[in-house]
Order: sequence, then structure tokens, then C-alpha cells
Amino acid sequence: MLSRDPEGADRFADDPAFAVHEGGKLLVQPTRRIESIADLALTYTPGVARVSSAIAAEPALGRRFTWASRVVAVVSDGTAVLGLGNIGPVAALPVMEGKACLFREFAGLSAVPIVLSTTDPDTIVETVAAIAPSFGGINLEDISAPRCFEIEERLRDRLSIPVMHDDQHGTAIVVLAALRNAARCTGRRLSDLRVVVAGAGAAGVACTKILLEAGVGDICVADSKGIVHVGRGDLTAVKQWVADATNTAGHAGTMIDALAGADVYIGLSGGSVPESAIAAMAEDCIVFSLANPIPEVDPVMAAKYAAVVATGRSDLPNQINNVLAFPGVFRGAIDAGATAITEEMKLAAATAIADVVGDDLRADYVVPSPLDRRVAAAVADAVARAT
Amino acid sequence: MLSRDPEGADRFADDPAFAVHEGGKLLVQPTRRIESIADLALTYTPGVARVSSAIAAEPALGRRFTWASRVVAVVSDGTAVLGLGNIGPVAALPVMEGKACLFREFAGLSAVPIVLSTTDPDTIVETVAAIAPSFGGINLEDISAPRCFEIEERLRDRLSIPVMHDDQHGTAIVVLAALRNAARCTGRRLSDLRVVVAGAGAAGVACTKILLEAGVGDICVADSKGIVHVGRGDLTAVKQWVADATNTAGHAGTMIDALAGADVYIGLSGGSVPESAIAAMAEDCIVFSLANPIPEVDPVMAAKYAAVVATGRSDLPNQINNVLAFPGVFRGAIDAGATAITEEMKLAAATAIADVVGDDLRADYVVPSPLDRRVAAAVADAVARAT
Repeated sequence: MLSRDPEGADRFADDPAFAVHEGGKLLVQPTRRIESIADLALTYTPGVARVSSAIAAEPALGRRFTWASRVVAVVSDGTAVLGLGNIGPVAALPVMEGKACLFREFAGLSAVPIVLSTTDPDTIVETVAAIAPSFGGINLEDISAPRCFEIEERLRDRLSIPVMHDDQHGTAIVVLAALRNAARCTGRRLSDLRVVVAGAGAAGVACTKILLEAGVGDICVADSKGIVHVGRGDLTAVKQWVADATNTAGHAGTMIDALAGADVYIGLSGGSVPESAIAAMAEDCIVFSLANPIPEVDPVMAAKYAAVVATGRSDLPNQINNVLAFPGVFRGAIDAGATAITEEMKLAAATAIADVVGDDLRADYVVPSPLDRRVAAAVADAVARAT
Repeated sequence: MLSRDPEGADRFADDPAFAVHEGGKLLVQPTRRIESIADLALTYTPGVARVSSAIAAEPALGRRFTWASRVVAVVSDGTAVLGLGNIGPVAALPVMEGKACLFREFAGLSAVPIVLSTTDPDTIVETVAAIAPSFGGINLEDISAPRCFEIEERLRDRLSIPVMHDDQHGTAIVVLAALRNAARCTGRRLSDLRVVVAGAGAAGVACTKILLEAGVGDICVADSKGIVHVGRGDLTAVKQWVADATNTAGHAGTMIDALAGADVYIGLSGGSVPESAIAAMAEDCIVFSLANPIPEVDPVMAAKYAAVVATGRSDLPNQINNVLAFPGVFRGAIDAGATAITEEMKLAAATAIADVVGDDLRADYVVPSPLDRRVAAAVADAVARAT
């Protein structure tokens, strides 16, 4: 009934995205059918009581005889969904279902969307902690900044299973992978690069952090009020960290100012960057313009000045897509029995993604395709070894 | 490694229940594979954003374009698991996975086990309320009494999706179904029956309630301290309700005392009932002895006195098994868009289960087999019509 207008035509019939979502995108399936009383007596009572008793006596057996260590919760409060903003839990659910599809498709992991009726950080932390024994990992998703930083940190402290806010670290891992290859493609080292990160939200802060850890020479971060520097009086705790850790040259002013002579632009903010600003960047510059669906920098214009251009779009070369990271990161962490996802594991994941490109490196191929089945396996292996 | 003793032999190899549980019993599967960039762009970004936007504008569309209304959370804190007691969330998980298997197998519903790291009723209520937008129904499971009564009641008040504590109402529905047919089999009406319910926990209280609603003549409930009556000074709120609503004859004393001349014994307590007590029941009495794996009344002994004997065991006739109720109850409620599971819906479910037996009624066939595929469909239909 919801589907039809009064004349009986389906107003969603013209968009294949709705057909793909009809009835939802996930099913929970038993691994074995129940076709006989004997099946029932093993899967459920009385047989299951013997398994539960064994786990009660020796909790580590839960890893072998339950699905918990093979299932990731994809948790969102719907406050920062894609480019759509705070659309609430039910509207966020198709995105979380999609994420769960990708976990299965690329890493063979089950994943369950958990969308929350609360946006209060305390309640979110308590809720996720309460349901955590059901899962082998927690993928936080589309939670707005700066709440996302505190929520992730508190859950990491509290839980002994991998917890990762993908908007932060998934993006950061793939950006680092692409930047490693873009630097190689243009004959530079990471330490040579002066990078401008446009955006100081979840992804901007995490990219800044991983790029510093990877040895990038200097980074200038800009938010909607301009360059983040120690002289600003309006900084949140996280932006104060950014101000302290970046901008060694002490730039103030606008993001456009910072781009003059910069080697790399990483757009994570939306909005639009004028051609003059890109023209003012260093020779053979690198432009990662990740707003979706409309990149901050027009990719055709960018190509007039930049040696390497990457976007978030699937219809252009060099797509920076989190799916290159999160399935393998969780798979590797879970396979290794990791109790957390560390900085070393993220750095290893980025290197593994970059290495899949290998000798095929070209300016329009600095990251693998999101469909490249080699990536999740390589990432899982690297992450497990870094555990 | 957990699986093997030092010599490399698997200490669980001799019990097929463990083989069935190896790696867990559930998988989350996408409804469609992601094999091309076009698939990815519809299942995930950018296509999913159009679906999320449509739901944000018109939340009722969530029912059509997400899986939420097709998935039930099976929630437990692990405090009253089968006959094992308080074994905690991880040890409870195989039971919840089994339940999820049964939801899929019999009702075509997805179900996700949610086991909790808390046993505090306030935290349980807050947690389930927080995750509720992810689900179309909440099956509470194996939560100890009397906490289970308060938790279910508060969640029913708070949420606008079906919430049911299966240990209470699933059992009650199947007991009523079986009693309808047992009464018919012995030529009696429900209103003629004097019933003794042994056990005033989750199942005992719910059975008492549904039997009163169905018109059973008189019920006497006994807990570990004897018959529940208004003169006792040790009654919880729920047992006070039991005392007020039952025992019109004003019996005091023990459960054995109550059995003298009774028409029906419903054992939900464990322990052991002596032959003399069953011998003292009314002629053509009815014995439902549901403790598992060891019934309170030896079924062979019971058959010497009773016209109808039912147990919880799969290897005996007349198995009272919740699987006859909960899949169809949730399926019917969800299909009908019900915001709660009402008393009318439970009564309708019981009648539907009894009616599947129909003209095949015999003393050893008062309830359908748990594998009878007609049951869930009949229950779902009856529940939806009662919505």
C-alpha cells in the first residue's frame, strides 16, 4: 500500500535502487536445515544444552561453538549518513544493510545492522557495551563528529573486541593507500609532501592522524572557519589536538590560502574549490576530492593541473572507497583474535591495499577497484600479522 | 586450538550436538550478490542515498525498503537458560541461535540473537529500546522471573513493535492448545476443569493467565513453598496477582494436597511428583509434565492414571514445544503490522494450534508435531486476523 499511488502505479518503479531494496537486503539463514526431530534435538533442546553447558564451564569455547566471533555489528545513530546528515535510524538502515552486504561479499563475515533510537553518547556507549557479547566486532558508522570520537574511544576502552568507526579509519586507511601510490607515481616520498586536508570531521581528523603516523611531512587542516591553528579560540578537544599536531608552518587564513604551493589536496568537506586555488598548487600535485556525489574539485578541471586525481565516485578512475578497507580489517582482526584495532593494524592495511596495485601503478590506477577480490584477503592477512 | 586436547584428539567429537554448533548456526546473507560496479552503486552509494532520503521524508517506507520488519531480535541476559539457570550471555548464545534457526525454518523470518552483558532490568529495558528501530519484533528469552515480568511489561509500554517473552507466552499458548484438545479428548469443557499449575515462574504465571482467560474453571498454583494463596506473607507482586486470581476454593498446603481430585496437572517446575499424588487425581485426569529432560511425573507411571499425558520431550508423544507458537505468532503480528501482541492474539494462536489436530485427535495426539509445517501458517493467519 505504501508502494503505490492512488492510481496503482508504483512511484518507485523508475529507480532500480528501490527495486534492489524491496523487502530489505539481508536474510539470516541457519547453516543447517531442521528437517527431522533429530535435527531439532541437536540444534535446539535437548542437544543445545550440552553445548551451552560446555561454554558455561569454559567460556573460550564460545569462539568455536557460536557465531559471535563471525558476526560484526554495524552500529549507527543515523546522525551523519552519507552526505544526507541527521536522517535518523530508520532512514539510515538501508546504508547499514548495504554495509552488511559488503562484509559478507568481500570478507565472508556476517554483519547485523543495529540502528539506534538514541543520539546520546552515554546511552550509545551503554547500549553497545550491553549487546557486545553477541558480536565479534563493532563497526561504528555514520555517527556525527565530534560525538563519534568520544563514543569510539570509550567503547575501545570498555570492550575487548575490535571496535572501529569506519567513517574515520576506513576512509583514512584507503586515503593513505592511495597517497602512498600517488606519491610513488609522482616520484615523491610521503615525507616530502605538504598536504591540505579540507574538513575536520570524522574522516578529516582520522586521515590527518594516519598520515602523520605514516610520515607525511606537513599537514594543514581546514574546517568551515578556515585553517585549524593554535591561535584559534573556538577549537573542540579534537581540533585542539589537530592544531597541536599539524601546521608546523603556522598558517592562518583560509583553506584556499593553504593550497598555495601544496602538494596534496584531500577534500572531505563538500562545497566547491575554485580553479584558481588548484592552479596555485605545486607542480604535479595530487587531488583527492572525496565528496559524493559531487566532488569539491571538478575532476576534469583538476586534471589540468594535477598528476593524480582521485574521487569517491564509482564512475571515475581512482575511487577512494572504504570497502577496500573495512571487510579485510575486521576479518584480519577477528581471525587473529585481536582485542582491538591498533594503529599498526591500520597502517598495515593501507600498505596492503597499496601493494595490490603493485607494478600496474598508473596515474589513473593508484587504488584497486572496489570489486578487486584480492584486496580483502591481502588486508586481512596484513592486519592479522600486525596483531 | 580450543578444540583439541594435547594429543590432538577432539574431545567434542563424540557428541553430534557439537558438530552441529561448529562455527555457530547462523549466517547473514545479502539477498542479492554484488558482482559489478552497477550492483555496488545500487546496493550502496550512491543509489542507497535515494532510498534513505525517501525513508527520511516518509518513515513508513522503512517497512517496504528495509529488512527491519522482517527480522526479530531474540534477546536474552542468560539468567534462566533452559534448565541450566544463570549461565551468562555467551553460554546462552547457542540457545538463541537455535531459536533464530527456528524462526527462519518455520516462519520465514530472519532473527538475530542479542545476548546482553547486563542483568539489570533498567539497563535491559534501555538497551532493547535503543536498538528497537533495527527490528520488527522483540522475542525475550530465558530471562529469570520475576525480572522477566517487569522487563516485558516496560518494553511493551515503550515500544510500538511486538514484544513477547516466549518462556511465558509461547509456553502458555501451546499448553492451552494442548489442554483444549485434551479436554475434548476426555469429553470435558475447559470450564469443568480444576487445574494444578506447579511452578510460579515465567511459564507458570503465563499459563495461569491464559487458562483463566480461556475459561478454565479453577486453578491452583504452587511454588516451592506450596500453594499460592492470599494468606501467604511472602508473595511478590506477580504472585499476589496469582493469589487473587486463582484458588477460589482457598486451598493452602502443598502442591500434593492440591492434586487430590484435580483434573489437570501442569508441571513447570522440575522436581519429582510421587505416584500417590497422581493416583489421587480425578478419573481420566490430564498430566502435562514439562520439565526437560526429566519430567516431574514419570510418563509411564502417569499413563497408569491419566487419560492424556504430555511432556516437553521430543522422544515421547504429545510434545509441548514452544516452536508450535512463536514463529507463527511473530509472523502473524508482523504481517498484520501489529504494534503489540495482545491476549486475543495469543488465544487465537492456541486455538489455531489445537485446530491443526482436528479430527485426528487421539489421547497421544493432542498437539501437532513440532515439525508440522501447517502450524506456523495457521497460527500466523489466526494471529493476523486477531490483530
